[in-house]
Amino acid sequence: MGKVNEDLVKERAKCTFNVKELTYFLDGGKDKTLERKERERIMLTKREELFGGVPDEYLSHKEKYENSMRKAVILFSLLRKQQEDNNTDLTNYRNLLSGVLGASISQDGSPFGLHYIMFMPVFMSQADEKQQEKWLHRALNCSIIGSYAQTELGHGTFIRGLETTATYDASTQEFVLHSPTLTSYKWWPGGLGNTANYCIVIAQLYSKGECHGIHSFIVQVRDEDTHMPLPGIKVGEIGVKMGLNAVNNGFIGFENVRIPRTNMLMKHAKVLEDGTYVKSKNSKLIYGAMVFVRVVIVFDSVNYLAKAITVGARYSAVRRQSQLKPGEPERQILDYVTQQDKILSAIAACYAMKMNARRLWDTFNIINEQLHQGDMERLGELHALACCLKAISTTDSSMFTALCRLACGGHGYMTSSNLPPTYALTTASCTYEGDNTVLLLQTARFLLKTWRQLIDSAVPLTPTVAYLKTVSAPGYSDKWESSVEGIIRGFQIVAMRKISACVESMTNKIMSGMSQEDAWNTTSIQLVSAAESHSRMIVISTFHEDMSKAMKTMSAPLAAVMTQLIELYAVYWTLERLGDLLQYTSISNADVIHLRSWYEELLRKIRPNTIGLVDAFDIIDELLQSTLGASDGRVYERLMEEALKSPLNAEPVNQSFHKYLKPFMQGKL
Amino acid sequence: MGKVNEDLVKERAKCTFNVKELTYFLDGGKDKTLERKERERIMLTKREELFGGVPDEYLSHKEKYENSMRKAVILFSLLRKQQEDNNTDLTNYRNLLSGVLGASISQDGSPFGLHYIMFMPVFMSQADEKQQEKWLHRALNCSIIGSYAQTELGHGTFIRGLETTATYDASTQEFVLHSPTLTSYKWWPGGLGNTANYCIVIAQLYSKGECHGIHSFIVQVRDEDTHMPLPGIKVGEIGVKMGLNAVNNGFIGFENVRIPRTNMLMKHAKVLEDGTYVKSKNSKLIYGAMVFVRVVIVFDSVNYLAKAITVGARYSAVRRQSQLKPGEPERQILDYVTQQDKILSAIAACYAMKMNARRLWDTFNIINEQLHQGDMERLGELHALACCLKAISTTDSSMFTALCRLACGGHGYMTSSNLPPTYALTTASCTYEGDNTVLLLQTARFLLKTWRQLIDSAVPLTPTVAYLKTVSAPGYSDKWESSVEGIIRGFQIVAMRKISACVESMTNKIMSGMSQEDAWNTTSIQLVSAAESHSRMIVISTFHEDMSKAMKTMSAPLAAVMTQLIELYAVYWTLERLGDLLQYTSISNADVIHLRSWYEELLRKIRPNTIGLVDAFDIIDELLQSTLGASDGRVYERLMEEALKSPLNAEPVNQSFHKYLKPFMQGKL
Repeated sequence: MGKVNEDLVKERAKCTFNVKELTYFLDGGKDKTLERKERERIMLTKREELFGGVPDEYLSHKEKYENSMRKAVILFSLLRKQQEDNNTDLTNYRNLLSGVLGASISQDGSPFGLHYIMFMPVFMSQADEKQQEKWLHRALNCSIIGSYAQTELGHGTFIRGLETTATYDASTQEFVLHSPTLTSYKWWPGGLGNTANYCIVIAQLYSKGECHGIHSFIVQVRDEDTHMPLPGIKVGEIGVKMGLNAVNNGFIGFENVRIPRTNMLMKHAKVLEDGTYVKSKNSKLIYGAMVFVRVVIVFDSVNYLAKAITVGARYSAVRRQSQLKPGEPERQILDYVTQQDKILSAIAACYAMKMNARRLWDTFNIINEQLHQGDMERLGELHALACCLKAISTTDSSMFTALCRLACGGHGYMTSSNLPPTYALTTASCTYEGDNTVLLLQTARFLLKTWRQLIDSAVPLTPTVAYLKTVSAPGYSDKWESSVEGIIRGFQIVAMRKISACVESMTNKIMSGMSQEDAWNTTSIQLVSAAESHSRMIVISTFHEDMSKAMKTMSAPLAAVMTQLIELYAVYWTLERLGDLLQYTSISNADVIHLRSWYEELLRKIRPNTIGLVDAFDIIDELLQSTLGASDGRVYERLMEEALKSPLNAEPVNQSFHKYLKPFMQGKL
Repeated sequence: MGKVNEDLVKERAKCTFNVKELTYFLDGGKDKTLERKERERIMLTKREELFGGVPDEYLSHKEKYENSMRKAVILFSLLRKQQEDNNTDLTNYRNLLSGVLGASISQDGSPFGLHYIMFMPVFMSQADEKQQEKWLHRALNCSIIGSYAQTELGHGTFIRGLETTATYDASTQEFVLHSPTLTSYKWWPGGLGNTANYCIVIAQLYSKGECHGIHSFIVQVRDEDTHMPLPGIKVGEIGVKMGLNAVNNGFIGFENVRIPRTNMLMKHAKVLEDGTYVKSKNSKLIYGAMVFVRVVIVFDSVNYLAKAITVGARYSAVRRQSQLKPGEPERQILDYVTQQDKILSAIAACYAMKMNARRLWDTFNIINEQLHQGDMERLGELHALACCLKAISTTDSSMFTALCRLACGGHGYMTSSNLPPTYALTTASCTYEGDNTVLLLQTARFLLKTWRQLIDSAVPLTPTVAYLKTVSAPGYSDKWESSVEGIIRGFQIVAMRKISACVESMTNKIMSGMSQEDAWNTTSIQLVSAAESHSRMIVISTFHEDMSKAMKTMSAPLAAVMTQLIELYAVYWTLERLGDLLQYTSISNADVIHLRSWYEELLRKIRPNTIGLVDAFDIIDELLQSTLGASDGRVYERLMEEALKSPLNAEPVNQSFHKYLKPFMQGKL
């Protein structure tokens, strides 16, 4: 590492808290930090193979895939070895997964990602014992690589509309998989293009002439030895995308492909030899994997945003531009308050999401445990919580990543800054595993159901919505108070009044003869808005509650900064959602003026700790992969070094000059 | 063209107005439409050469450049021929430019773009007659290709801080160009990487030991015959970016490179043979080209957004997903009100920006004419207007393009939809030619100056800010009225009160001992917000005024739809900026409820004309280049056709299986 940029050195000297203390907290304890460091150390034994050579961005689409395969097998061989050394068993899947997540070295994703994040979890939750015996070990040690094929060209959101069929033929005890239309082709499954040889396929199950809805089947896609697609299977990759181009997303179509009856995943529903369909005892159990993936997405979003903000903050400290006063030296752009607004609000958002991801993970584990004991009570709540947190965390990560990129000016547009790929990643997650608008509408559906329970009966409300009862109780004082607690109450009142307004609006429409469905549709803009307010309240209050709890064991200097971050986050969103608060709470214009000063005051206070707050994420340069964000702040040197790797700079005159440009300039074309 | 999608056919049948009438209006008259069509016809004589072959997205960075050169010379040869046939002279540069703009067939930009958009206009406005005689004809017929090198690695916004020096040596009558540091390397100039052989370079002029600030020099960069970089010049390309990868952005450094004295562009300032520096009579004249570029950017933004929204609207009509009511067929997603909200607000924004781009163009021409007659009075206003419209139009185009992309779900993430490249284009324009935050702060500076004039004297205000006097006059009624006029007045009041609050806040700070500059900096979040409100008001009122005027000669059915679009745009932004209006105007909660119903009502009314409104842009499929947006609506067929062009689909098994994957799966790695 070269000499560290002087401004970064000064920023680090100014930091008022112990960065390591914060890193340990973020990792979940010193032991976790050390574990992570050990994983990184092992990875870096292959530094040249993994990070050397011509950067991927200069390669063709095909070369990118081939290079990602080269790197993936190096990386996952290391992972597999670690797993064997540590004797990881299946109960330890969470650790394995965090290894996988840590191992996604490329912002372009990995062709093996879906094998771990969808294929394995779904298989584990839906395959019966015999099936697990047959395939699980092979999947775990990567003797087979799986994908998960649900989405079709014509259907994403509305999975009941999937067209692929699996028709049971009792005479041979086989299912016949078929793609009746072009739109029924599976489209998007990660790793399916050229990599996976197995796949879980979701299809409409037909038996004895009757359709039983969608079910899961494990299907071999390619020959294990030659990798040739098996007969009747049309498989390929879907082409270039905005990002994630190493994921090798694929399409697949089936032409009456026969698979054994025992390839239907039968832990829950079954088809007997004679074709009798046996329903699942609890059809909701199938949601477990879907919820799990959304929990993972919330975690991922935080990590991507942490990268973006590390880049944005460090560049803002290194970059000097313009004078504040004539004759002065040029200022670090971080000294401009409009820049602080962008960078520090993004940092606060990252910490807020981090605490929410943790809480979601804990809630998931508690409720999942209850589920396994047959207790379904809180499944609806978990589903609604995962929906809204997935929507909010991906929307915010994407928005703040874009903000960080724009805050880095022109250089933030360079792929070598890693900000464009990080944006491409975060914005993708706004769509996959449930479009955010649709997820907020699902949250709204849950809220309206809750609202009716609240009015109709004395059923106790689940924790995340209990506030609705409190703030709608007669005599509840809605006096505005400019504190974090006051802001949370403000958002609770906003959410409650919006929900109430939606109910009223729908009721009026229905009373005047509109159908329930049309009333829902015509109210949907407001329903989304109500769900957003509810979600925002949850994020702020979880951040506040859990961080406040954690602060009790922190050193005073660190706790002080965490308090400022909570306040900044709460005030930021109050000012962002001022229309709601002015409309539904008793906040006054004087309060607003006060909040603005408070916000500007917080920026001023947090400013000296900006670099400490991102250094604490402890993202090593090899994983950050950013010319603008590296820990030494050698921004300009790195930009030039990366540019010089461009194959277009390898020769002084490109061949196109002789072939095209010169004849054109000479008027010969 | 295959069979047209049935839903699109039905949508077109539903349209209540004559689409051709609207197209003629948008083009500026039937003759302009026919001219455009003729240009397109000529271009399509080279259809296979320009649009055939493997799509660019599958190529490597180097191959993309070479392919873009191949296509550029075909296209610009056609353009040059047209120009010669039509005997285009320099007064007709505007037509030539619109030809160039129409000719940017790739969303990735063109290596020749800067030659036309910066090199030529700057040269024309800053070169003296002798220089024009020597170079202009050669530039016009592309015997030489130029770039424009201003931005450096270390300096973008703050051009006074540029480090490149041009030191006059009277003994040889030469300037010595030098790059004293790494950060002084020019970085970003379009076409400079491997294409241009000339360049206008901005450098600090030194003569007789004195610095005279930045001036422009024309510099030969490469040998005209061999294309080799000239001695002392380090030139190359800067690497992969988020988008615009065919632009061939470059870097350049100078090691004491000598150029003749006569290569300084001397129309305004001069250096005499003995080194005497002669100041420009009017240093502001140099802003002309900068303003011109911003005017062009506003036009471009509209065109990009028109593409995005054509794709978004057509896909929303073709895509069917979910049932509104059980048992019904799946609905076009355009029937969902949350989708209408996204698509129709983007359409309205596109029409609003179109009218604003026109007005800006007219204003530019009027004021430019005045400038040439020595009348500088309105230069400040033009500068402020171009600043704020550039900021608003690029921010909005980028935001609505992202919205359209997300509204197309997963398929909108496919590069073949053309939405990702269009987003990359629009978001780039938020940064180049002035970062939008900086531009809004410049607008704010103009507004504060105006505010002081208003208080201090009876100086008449220029048209775009005259409202400040009206709405701040004593006794002005701020009674809210829910009409477009009422909304415009509302935004005027908001802008005025925000400006007034900024002034008050800064005054207080200064009174309590803060420096002017620190007061400005600590108020800057609110200054940006004030400038944004002012700009928003301008956009709404220009749309309203100019479209209302135009409607007088439109057919009644078309005028009716245009009225709805104006209303939708005004109401949309009222609801988006509700916090401002609730804080600063007399709008009530009842008004807000009414506005929401009005908005939902407008969506319902405009819905049947959605496709007509985008068809009217008349963007041919070859230029739209979108699987999701083609005029025949064969969405799924095109997605598959494009995927099958992927080189990864050319062979059933990729070589990486044998090299990497198989050994890995067999545990041999």
